[in-house]
Amino acid sequence: MKKNRRDFIKMSGLIAGSTLVGFNTNPIIAQKLSGKKNMNSSKMKLSYNPYTLELKHVFTIATSSRKTTPVMLTKIEYEDFVGYGEASMPPYLGESQESAAKFLSKVNLSQFNDPLDLENILNYVDSIDSGNAAAKASVDIALHDLVGKLLNKPWHKIWGFPKDTTPFTSFTIGIDTDEVVKQKVHEAEEYKILKVKLGRDTDKQMIETIRSVTKKPLVVDVNQGWTDKEFALDMIYWLKERGIDFVEQPMPKNQIDDMAWLTEKSPLPTIADEALQRIPDVIKAFGVYSGINIKLMKCTGMREAHKMLTLAKSLGMKVMLGCMTETSCAISAAAQLSSMVDWADLDGNLLISNDPYDGIKVIEGKVTLNDYPGIGLK
Amino acid sequence: MKKNRRDFIKMSGLIAGSTLVGFNTNPIIAQKLSGKKNMNSSKMKLSYNPYTLELKHVFTIATSSRKTTPVMLTKIEYEDFVGYGEASMPPYLGESQESAAKFLSKVNLSQFNDPLDLENILNYVDSIDSGNAAAKASVDIALHDLVGKLLNKPWHKIWGFPKDTTPFTSFTIGIDTDEVVKQKVHEAEEYKILKVKLGRDTDKQMIETIRSVTKKPLVVDVNQGWTDKEFALDMIYWLKERGIDFVEQPMPKNQIDDMAWLTEKSPLPTIADEALQRIPDVIKAFGVYSGINIKLMKCTGMREAHKMLTLAKSLGMKVMLGCMTETSCAISAAAQLSSMVDWADLDGNLLISNDPYDGIKVIEGKVTLNDYPGIGLK
Repeated sequence: MKKNRRDFIKMSGLIAGSTLVGFNTNPIIAQKLSGKKNMNSSKMKLSYNPYTLELKHVFTIATSSRKTTPVMLTKIEYEDFVGYGEASMPPYLGESQESAAKFLSKVNLSQFNDPLDLENILNYVDSIDSGNAAAKASVDIALHDLVGKLLNKPWHKIWGFPKDTTPFTSFTIGIDTDEVVKQKVHEAEEYKILKVKLGRDTDKQMIETIRSVTKKPLVVDVNQGWTDKEFALDMIYWLKERGIDFVEQPMPKNQIDDMAWLTEKSPLPTIADEALQRIPDVIKAFGVYSGINIKLMKCTGMREAHKMLTLAKSLGMKVMLGCMTETSCAISAAAQLSSMVDWADLDGNLLISNDPYDGIKVIEGKVTLNDYPGIGLK
Repeated sequence: MKKNRRDFIKMSGLIAGSTLVGFNTNPIIAQKLSGKKNMNSSKMKLSYNPYTLELKHVFTIATSSRKTTPVMLTKIEYEDFVGYGEASMPPYLGESQESAAKFLSKVNLSQFNDPLDLENILNYVDSIDSGNAAAKASVDIALHDLVGKLLNKPWHKIWGFPKDTTPFTSFTIGIDTDEVVKQKVHEAEEYKILKVKLGRDTDKQMIETIRSVTKKPLVVDVNQGWTDKEFALDMIYWLKERGIDFVEQPMPKNQIDDMAWLTEKSPLPTIADEALQRIPDVIKAFGVYSGINIKLMKCTGMREAHKMLTLAKSLGMKVMLGCMTETSCAISAAAQLSSMVDWADLDGNLLISNDPYDGIKVIEGKVTLNDYPGIGLK
């Protein structure tokens, strides 16, 4: 287990005193936003460091474009074990390295004696402040990694899930020029399913451009881009003719009645994404969408994600497992649930050029679990 | 772990060849109904033995009376570990030692390499035949006990639940003469909450008899005994005045509209019992009852019980954890969930005079978890 700590130190690149500082972030800012809590060696010690993900391509969705994603890398040390976690914070979701550092500085794990006391510890973390879902997830993931290492089992085993029934992951093609889109499709040769970002006036052109170079199954993510339900239904029929498997968040999350109407009439499954964060939203999505997209960064982490999976399956809803642009840390954590979902969209680490972790891999397009204890980091 | 196997052999009392035979059952019948599957030592080996529980008092509910309960004791051996399970089969639920033996003879665990593969193994067991919930639970419990021992942790820890927030258990007072009822209340001195069986024309007399000798909180179980909703509502108001905490299954399970009407108007929470077996029934009970009574013998065991707990809590429903007359084996298994429920009724092992197991205890009326790995048997 010491190996993990050494790897983390090596990976972090810069060391400032007792505080690990993520590289790729201004060192002075990084030092200010870093922290190490609870130095008593018999207790859990939480530390955290900002890090900036570099995206391979400028990433464009219906509402914004960007070339980097700020994250906060966490770890929890306990006896000879270290658990790793991460908060990924795309700016449009409202969290930042500053807000995460502020939140994490309030987390006091020294009041708990046993890392396995997950319900109590994570209820406490959740109670510190509202919001801060990604910051909360960064504690949840590190704690799960630690507990898995204490039990010497990966979480897919602790949850009793199969190892081999994992899905193919979709690979996301952002909105771009025809030439760049074709190039991206070419680069995505390994992936069996492509996810296409729609929600602009170029939607049909995007699909036709992609269909001109591949016959692969496609799924689409509209990111709330269609505001007229009749238009949305027409588009879905048009998409069904072109081999699309499902439509994610076709309409604005607040148009609930329109969305329920659309789901009832839609020939393709509809999946809630922006409309959904945590457990109560699953109940609200029931009857309004065909399924839900669970993302660790929105639902506060693995424990709530696992509950949401149970809930959605019990309600007969489809489940998709999604991500932000993230390192292999958060992707590996999410992948622990993947053999139980209908679709996975776990390409967040494949879109960045400076992944500091090595974890769960996509092999020939399929999320492929390993036997490493915890969340599956090597 | 070898100690557990020795204890089981000692406990079983009678050995017939390689087959453990439960005592207290006619030895010839027991031998016919026993079995040991999958003798390959590198695989899981399931064995099962009938056993007859002797009740301390004749047990009377609204629809029947009896002095014994037939059970089937199971174990799963794997490498040097042994997991213990149990099916309890009160006759009115339709299972028997014969039906359990028939079901268990079809269970082939040799096709699975890893006991931790719970989702696959238990889906397979569930798929063998419909019904047989208690027989399925006897495999589920033994498998959980085995897995907990492999992980060297009790299930309340594996599930991340608190250890100390367990409830007081209610202790059941059956329908009987005034004198016997008073005697039972006296014998139940240790228990902080009494559960009173109602549903006959003596209901008010039962409550008044008990209230004449104790001021303890009471809960009532009507076992579908009230068929008129207005009468039921009047009774509940009358009960509320006398310090009753909730009303379990007041009306027949098929009177769904009446029941929803009653729950909406009731000043006390209503709890589904006969109306509820497995996950789909939780959804059906939502909006009809205030809460649910989860029993391992009806829901096929610990894995589905855990899912039902998650589901009910997510739906904002109350959760009660119940039991049949059972040995400390199934009671200890259920107790692993107990720190997360609103009420527990885990007195099944306290009502029998020939409990072959030693496990989770009720101490000063409170379900008190221990640190033994698996389901908590010593």
